[in-house]
Order: sequence, then structure tokens, then C-alpha cells
Amino acid sequence: MRDVCIVGIGQTPIGELWDDSLRELAFKALRQAAADAGIERPEALYVGNMLAPRLSDQAHLGALIADYTGWRGIEATTVEAACASGGVAFQAAVRAVASGAVDVAAVCGVEKMTDDTPELVTSALATAADADFEGVQGASFVALNALIMQRYMYEYGVPHDAFAPFSINAHQNAVNNPNAMFQRAITLEDYKRASMIAAPINLYDSSPICDGAAAIILCPAEMARELAAKPLVRVLASATATDSLDLASRRDLLGLEAAQMSARKAYQQAELSPADIDVFEVHDAFSIMAALCLEAAGFAPRGQGTRLAQEGDITISGCIPISTMGGLKGRGHPVGATGVYELVDLVTQLRGEAGANQVKNAAVGMTQNIGGTGATVVTHILGRVE
Amino acid sequence: MRDVCIVGIGQTPIGELWDDSLRELAFKALRQAAADAGIERPEALYVGNMLAPRLSDQAHLGALIADYTGWRGIEATTVEAACASGGVAFQAAVRAVASGAVDVAAVCGVEKMTDDTPELVTSALATAADADFEGVQGASFVALNALIMQRYMYEYGVPHDAFAPFSINAHQNAVNNPNAMFQRAITLEDYKRASMIAAPINLYDSSPICDGAAAIILCPAEMARELAAKPLVRVLASATATDSLDLASRRDLLGLEAAQMSARKAYQQAELSPADIDVFEVHDAFSIMAALCLEAAGFAPRGQGTRLAQEGDITISGCIPISTMGGLKGRGHPVGATGVYELVDLVTQLRGEAGANQVKNAAVGMTQNIGGTGATVVTHILGRVE
Repeated sequence: MRDVCIVGIGQTPIGELWDDSLRELAFKALRQAAADAGIERPEALYVGNMLAPRLSDQAHLGALIADYTGWRGIEATTVEAACASGGVAFQAAVRAVASGAVDVAAVCGVEKMTDDTPELVTSALATAADADFEGVQGASFVALNALIMQRYMYEYGVPHDAFAPFSINAHQNAVNNPNAMFQRAITLEDYKRASMIAAPINLYDSSPICDGAAAIILCPAEMARELAAKPLVRVLASATATDSLDLASRRDLLGLEAAQMSARKAYQQAELSPADIDVFEVHDAFSIMAALCLEAAGFAPRGQGTRLAQEGDITISGCIPISTMGGLKGRGHPVGATGVYELVDLVTQLRGEAGANQVKNAAVGMTQNIGGTGATVVTHILGRVE
Repeated sequence: MRDVCIVGIGQTPIGELWDDSLRELAFKALRQAAADAGIERPEALYVGNMLAPRLSDQAHLGALIADYTGWRGIEATTVEAACASGGVAFQAAVRAVASGAVDVAAVCGVEKMTDDTPELVTSALATAADADFEGVQGASFVALNALIMQRYMYEYGVPHDAFAPFSINAHQNAVNNPNAMFQRAITLEDYKRASMIAAPINLYDSSPICDGAAAIILCPAEMARELAAKPLVRVLASATATDSLDLASRRDLLGLEAAQMSARKAYQQAELSPADIDVFEVHDAFSIMAALCLEAAGFAPRGQGTRLAQEGDITISGCIPISTMGGLKGRGHPVGATGVYELVDLVTQLRGEAGANQVKNAAVGMTQNIGGTGATVVTHILGRVE
């Protein structure tokens, strides 16, 4: 297996981007990443996307985006695992380069959610859950996460306010990210006053519906050393695990078992432990998910994820900074693109290019990208090459 | 890069399978393949599917099918490239095993098309074409293929009847395939009398709307030798190429350039030429596509694909047998599953298990799986291990 490095990153701002089509967003992110890497044309493209077949009447994004980006002819496919699509697309690219079949691979996570009505988007997002046992009952994606959050609060005796620091931290970090959707801080009072979406999830517990694209260029380590003017970042681990789609079949509602398994596999591959991780980009689609990620990945004991947040450990200067560029909550959550945004944010940290949000001496970092309510979890560990 | 072998195959019959849900179909094919391989549980699952997000309100098939098959926890994703989804899912599995990241990988192509109205299915199939430049004009998928066929007939002065042998051969071969949708032969008269769908494409030029699932188990060559009681089949080449989604942007409407490119790459990888191929499973979704595949892959000069068929060269005893178990036309075309069915049919031939349809001394064979009207083409070459 060849060592794989990240040599280019690109991203569009996240927001309601009504002037840009789906393919235009992908083009912008990919061209930026290719320029960053100093390459003209990759050999293969892996697209992470969840909603285009329903919201844009468009499947077959691999060839479409390859062509529109000026790369007609190259190998190209879409890789999908609901909101973990970006993460699994990146993993497919890593495998292709590691195997020796491909030298230069491009990854693009892209999603266009704001051209449709909220009703259509809500029903499209519900396809991440079990259609026969959850979707058919009318369970929206927020409602399913609300069930988990309610159970967490009951089981561990945690008040709703305990989740506020996740949202406050994410918004605070988004202030300094020009690509973030919400570049403004919020206070505990704002959190408390926020309108309820699906109790106990309020507006500030939830990530927004939005558009965006992020991209990454990968190549083998030997080639990377010739290409890169920037600090090199190496892929130390890439691991996916799964669980049941429906909540009712889970063995452990609060354990996020797929996150535990994928983190365990990733630590093994990288020969590292939680203590070695300097930055952790969590999948904070809902604040409850941030808490569960921290616990599943070994940064907090069960039921203690919110305490970690309340003690300030998750801030840029804390012992395990999360959502450092705003996370899904502050930067935004264009679902199929999110896994790639997480990786782009982490590379920005490891390169030392995070500006006011720079985590000091960030050398090793981790991302966790979640599909559905935890049915697919992809963990990546990246390390700066010294 | 490790050598990769196929150690198990499975399939459901193809048809209007109203008694089986999407997950049930996948389960049946995967369990059959696992039993054939003599394995209990793979490490990773790659699902090829195109239409579930629209027709079954279900994305996120990787985790769903892994769980339903009894493999909760394993790595699992969906890989999509319209009707080439089965082929690209298989390629992802090959890469994962070749890289060393995964030892035992499962692939499942699955599609459920007959639970919805023909109107919904037609609009879902159109997502394989360019939504902004073709779909929005109301161009159905049959209509786009009709444009290509019409141009072929005009450019090369070929009459409509010249395409009949493709359909006759496919139906003839389907007679002996218990999993085929249409197990009956047709005559030239039947072909001539068939009702027109979108001129010049008639009923017998088109493959059916249907349900089905096919599955394959892969592992490294060393492990395969320990596992397999059956003749081993090795992956000699795996190559994908792309073109524009929309026909108007093609440099060459009749060249099927992505098929040319992917075949060329595959021949290079395997160090083989068309003369070495004993069986060719073509993507005969429409009879025009069978003709273009034969030309693009080097079995006939431009404009001579139909002549090859008329001279009987494509039959079981011909010099380049195609659609040997009925092809997309006779066996059926559950779109996202088709690429896997093609590979399963080829393995059946290479193992010498094709019964009345056995191609004598079949040692090396090729499959071509096409997404859209030729925007993604995946070519695989497999060889029997002596």
C-alpha cells in the first residue's frame, strides 16, 4: 500500500448560493484545489453528493463534473453514504492512489440544497434514514436526532443548556472563516432564546440548509514531495464502520457504535491514541452529535461529552479543539460536501494556515463524518509531514 | 498492487419481483455469493444502485444492506455512475482489495424499478442524462438513444433490420438462463412487427424495466487459492473513462469515445488485444449500444458492428460471443445492478458453468458497462486461473 498525501485543497463559501449551479460550485472548488496542488488534470475524480438525484434531477455527477471542470475523459464516479458521502468519496480516492491504480486523484464534495422548498429538502434528507421503518412514519431527520438528544438528557441527567457551548464555540470559530455561512458569534442568552425545531433540538442545536463545494487533490508521497510548495499532509488512517439505519434496531442508542468502531480502526492504522490528536473536526450536524462523537472517539467518558464542552476543552486553545473553522453548525452543512469540508479545514490547520483560528503546533488531526443518525461513520487521521 | 480474484457469485432472477423489497433482493444475491465463496462475512461492501433515492425514497444503501444481510458494522458505501453503477462499484471493491486495505470485499448491484409508475421510472432514468441541457427539454432516455441510432443508420446507410440479430441473439441466449426475464426466442418477423417506442427504437431494440440483484465476493489471489473449490477467476483489468453527459457536446456522436478509452486502458493493463477475448458481455440496453460497443472495443471497424451481428459472429459459437446469458435485452436491465450481472455472467462462462450457453474454451472475457448514453464506461477483463 502506497503512502498517500494531500497536495491541494479548495472550497467555495457556504451559503444560499443562488447564482451558482451544482456543477459550477464543483468546478470552482476543484479548480482551486488543482491550482493549489499545481496540477492541471487528475486521473480520477470521486464525487461526494447525496441529494442531486432528488433535488436537481441529476444523477451521474462523476462524468458531469469531470467534463465541466475541463477534465473530460478521466475516470469519475459518485460515492454516497448520505451525509457521510464526502468522507467515503475521500476514502475511495485514498484507496485508488494507495493501490497504485491512480497517481493523481481529485475528490469533490458538493451539495445544492437551497433551490428547493424546505418541504422537498426535508423529505430528501429523510432518505438518509430507513425509508421502510422511519421515513414512512414521517420521521424527519431532525426528529430522529431529537429522540437521541432527549434520551441523552434523560439518561445522564444533563440539562439542555449543557449543549450550548458546542454552538457557541462553532459560531465563535466561524467568525474568522470567510467561507463560513454564519460569521457571527452567539451568546448563551441567544441559545436559550432560540426557537424550538423538534424538542429538545432548537435552532442553535441544528446546522443550516445550504449550498457549497469543497475539493482535495491526492497523490503518492514520492510525487507529493516534488509537487508541493506547501507543508505536506499525509493520510495516516482511513476507516469506515456502519450500524443499523433505523434507531429502533440499535444495540446502544447513545453509544454511536459505528463511530467507536471506525475511530478504533483509525487509531490502529495510525498507531495513535486520542492523546495524540491535536484537532478533531466533529460532525456537529446537531449539538448532540458533537457530544456523542467526543465520547465515541475516546475524548470523554460516556455521558461526559457536554462536560468537556462546558469546561472549555473544545475551544481553539482547549485540549481537544473541535469545529475549528466553524464546524457544520457555523461554517455550514451542505450534506454530501461536509466530509470534504472537514478534511479541508483540518489540512488548513495542519498547514498552519488557519489564521486567527490556528491551533498551536497542530501536527496530527482527526475528522469524523457521519451518515444518517450514525449508520455510517468515516474517520480520517491526517498528519503534517515534517 | 495485489492480484484480485473473484471467489463467489450470486444473483436473483430478474423480473417484476413484487414480493421482494430492495433490501431483500440485495440480501438474496449477497448471501448466495457468500455461500458460493465459502465466507461468512466480508470486511467491506460496495453497492451499485442508481434509482433508490428517487423510486424507493432510500439513499444510504451501503449501511442498510450490510445490516440487513447480517453484516452490521462492516465498511459499506454506494457507488453510482447511472447505469454503470454496478461496474464502478465492482471497481471500487477491486481497488480496496488491491490496495491491501481490505481482504474480503463484497459487491452488490441492486435495483427495484417496477414498484412505481412508468412515468416516474422514465423521469428517474432521465437523471442519467444532463438535467440542465437534456432532461429539462423532456428528452427521455430512449429518445436520446434513438437520436444516436438514427444518426448511425443515416451515416453508414444501415437499414433498421440490420439491428435485429442483436435482439434475436440475446433472446435466444436468455432461453437457457433460468434467471433471465424473457426466456423465449424471437424471430426476425417478431422484430419487424414490434411496436415503435421512439423511432427508430422499437420494443425489441430496448431492454426492459425490471428488478434484480447480483453479487460478487473478491479477495487477494493468495487467499483465493485457499478458499476456492471452484475454478478461480482473476481480475486482469479494471478501467473507467468518461465523456460529456449531453449528446450535443460530444466530439463524436458515434465513436463512443469513453468506451474506446476504457477498452484501450483495459487492454494495456491486461497486456491483451481484442483477439484474446473469448466472450464479451456488452451493454445492450439498446441494440444501437451493442453495435457501438463492438466497434469501440475493436471487434469491428466503424459502422461495421451490425455486419458482425448479421454474419453470426456474436452467437455462442461465433468468433466474439456477446450477451451470452441473454444480455440486458433478454436477461434484463435492472440498471444499477447490470454491471454486476455482466460480471456474474462472465464468471459463469469462465468457470465453465454456463450449461447450454457455454462458450467453448472460454479463458478470457470482457465486460463493458455504460452509464448514460456513453458518458461513463467501465471495462473489466477477467481471466480463468489455470
